[in-house]
Amino acid sequence: MKFNIAVIPGDGIGPEVVEQAKKALDAVAEAYDHIFLYKEAQLGASAMSIDGNPLPKKTIEICKNADAILFGAVGNAKYDNDPSAKVRPEQGLLKLRQELDLFCKIKPVKAYDNLIYNSPLKREVIKGTDFIIFRELTGGIYFGEKKISDDEKSAYDASVYTVDEISRVTHLAFKAAKNRKKKVTLVDKANVLETSRLWRRTVIEIAKEYSDVEVEFMFVDNAAMKLILDPKQFDVILTENLFGDIISDEASVISGSIGLLASSSIGKNNALFEPIHGSYPLAKGKNIANPLASILSAAMLLEHLGLEEEADAIERAVEKSIALGITTKDIKRKTQKSTTTSKVGDFIAD
Amino acid sequence: MKFNIAVIPGDGIGPEVVEQAKKALDAVAEAYDHIFLYKEAQLGASAMSIDGNPLPKKTIEICKNADAILFGAVGNAKYDNDPSAKVRPEQGLLKLRQELDLFCKIKPVKAYDNLIYNSPLKREVIKGTDFIIFRELTGGIYFGEKKISDDEKSAYDASVYTVDEISRVTHLAFKAAKNRKKKVTLVDKANVLETSRLWRRTVIEIAKEYSDVEVEFMFVDNAAMKLILDPKQFDVILTENLFGDIISDEASVISGSIGLLASSSIGKNNALFEPIHGSYPLAKGKNIANPLASILSAAMLLEHLGLEEEADAIERAVEKSIALGITTKDIKRKTQKSTTTSKVGDFIAD
Ligand SMILES: CC(C)[C@H](C(=O)O)[C@@H](O)C(=O)O
Ligand SMILES: CC(C)[C@H](C(=O)O)[C@@H](O)C(=O)O
Repeated sequence: MKFNIAVIPGDGIGPEVVEQAKKALDAVAEAYDHIFLYKEAQLGASAMSIDGNPLPKKTIEICKNADAILFGAVGNAKYDNDPSAKVRPEQGLLKLRQELDLFCKIKPVKAYDNLIYNSPLKREVIKGTDFIIFRELTGGIYFGEKKISDDEKSAYDASVYTVDEISRVTHLAFKAAKNRKKKVTLVDKANVLETSRLWRRTVIEIAKEYSDVEVEFMFVDNAAMKLILDPKQFDVILTENLFGDIISDEASVISGSIGLLASSSIGKNNALFEPIHGSYPLAKGKNIANPLASILSAAMLLEHLGLEEEADAIERAVEKSIALGITTKDIKRKTQKSTTTSKVGDFIAD
Repeated sequence: MKFNIAVIPGDGIGPEVVEQAKKALDAVAEAYDHIFLYKEAQLGASAMSIDGNPLPKKTIEICKNADAILFGAVGNAKYDNDPSAKVRPEQGLLKLRQELDLFCKIKPVKAYDNLIYNSPLKREVIKGTDFIIFRELTGGIYFGEKKISDDEKSAYDASVYTVDEISRVTHLAFKAAKNRKKKVTLVDKANVLETSRLWRRTVIEIAKEYSDVEVEFMFVDNAAMKLILDPKQFDVILTENLFGDIISDEASVISGSIGLLASSSIGKNNALFEPIHGSYPLAKGKNIANPLASILSAAMLLEHLGLEEEADAIERAVEKSIALGITTKDIKRKTQKSTTTSKVGDFIAD
């Protein structure tokens, strides 16, 4: 079969890890007789360096016309440390989410047996952990009105949620739970926030349509604790945009390496796949970045295209590379020699 | 010396742990020849059960006239699971913070050698951890405007910060850092939020007055990860209200037990001391709740009153109870028998 894939390398280590993911896709294309037509697009600081725009019109167009989007990373320290910068790389990604209405970011979190030793958490705490986070991605304080007063002495961010925004991601989460351990945990701050109370009300209503799924409510402060104390209790975590951002990154420590976690951002007509690690500028161009998360996002992309077997093949290759220790420095065991980004990519493609 | 202490037992396990803290204070009074005049006040669900008001006027008055406030806990599941409740116990605490202008919540986080085994984190990750969180407590999304639309289909919370609000807590954090390892980490989300950018700008300015203190900026998602991956890197963490709520609870896992962490909430003229654990309704009245966090908040209270030696005496007694294993179930070793809330209190007082 033939597919159009938009490829956005982005910033920092984005380009080098995406290249390895493309190698894996090429290998799949050859082995399974598919054609993947890549269209490369710019976003973030790398796009800004051309004409100042973190999300060029052409990128939106390429993405809208693609069957799926493979994304690297965004962000550049230059802008982070300049709080008065008016345009920042991240706006490219946020605007793309909005333009394509990618309303849900899905992050599976698993403790890989072969990597448990690498986690800061004790083996007995994380062994067997297997949950998925459904994070709402186009609402909340990310996209509410922002203001700075004329004298620059006061700033303002608004968080807004509507029942419709909450409903669509809630249905996705409950549907996923039906095929899993049948439990949804809504993470909110309903003892303080009005938006959280709307989330709770809406989720309580929708839960009635999924009578075989148990629903549980947890304050975000408590959840941040429970994720570390007892991560095995979770099956599907459902939450709003900002809380999802925080707890997804926190949960990544469970896997033993952030270099292994992939995510998908889903809309009605589009889907974007990316590693959850960021642009990690310090490692840029050094051929040391771990490409596995990007390669696993390519596997998620294949699954999304209905190519289950092909996705499996990539996942097996990743597991093999970990088992054999053909990995970058960040996840190698003390007794193993590490290898480079591109060699890991070659091994997986092979 | 003679001191007026406002005592707010609050909800859930609040009353039983506060009672043990009072025992410790009484023992100090006797040994060091002080007089502590306690005035008990109501707050939260327990206050609501009298006249529906989570913060009676009388409580505010008692607190305003006290030299320090000893607080238990607030919260009751009945209200959490009723997203349409108009008045909730937590409003009592939030309003008290506002009335007394308690603008900074300070939480020390330490890995106690004797309790490291109890933490979900590996010994080598946490050993030696010693940092303090300075959380802004009267601004941000907690106290911004809240709205629900007439058709109840859309909700809104505003987060607002002013330079003045940011400045006062920032100065406290930098002053503390001067007497410690001389590093302040500002946790924010400046790549997305306007309020965070105001925080960054303000902190950059103030940092110039503390040239011997290093300042570092970290996005909250990254911080949630780093707190678990490498908590030893932190000295003083400075952050806004909501992020502070989340990462303080997260950081509590490091200590090996949330039953051990105390906090102070500081204003210009008042100070409140409380355990960081909540009301834990399931344990209420069972004499199993760990009173050490409440007892340690009494020690913080003494320190605040200038009674350093007296505070030390309590801290030593707590360390002894842990070393001897005279503790409640939550922190006992497998080989030890646990004891009750009140017996731990008696031991400390002895
Ligand atoms: C880059 C940044 C704006 C983004 C976010 O906060 O959503 C990232 O942290 C993520 O989680 O995808
Ligand atoms: C009880 C609740 C409103 C409170 C908060 O969120 O501030 C608590 O979690 C805390 O951290 O003191």
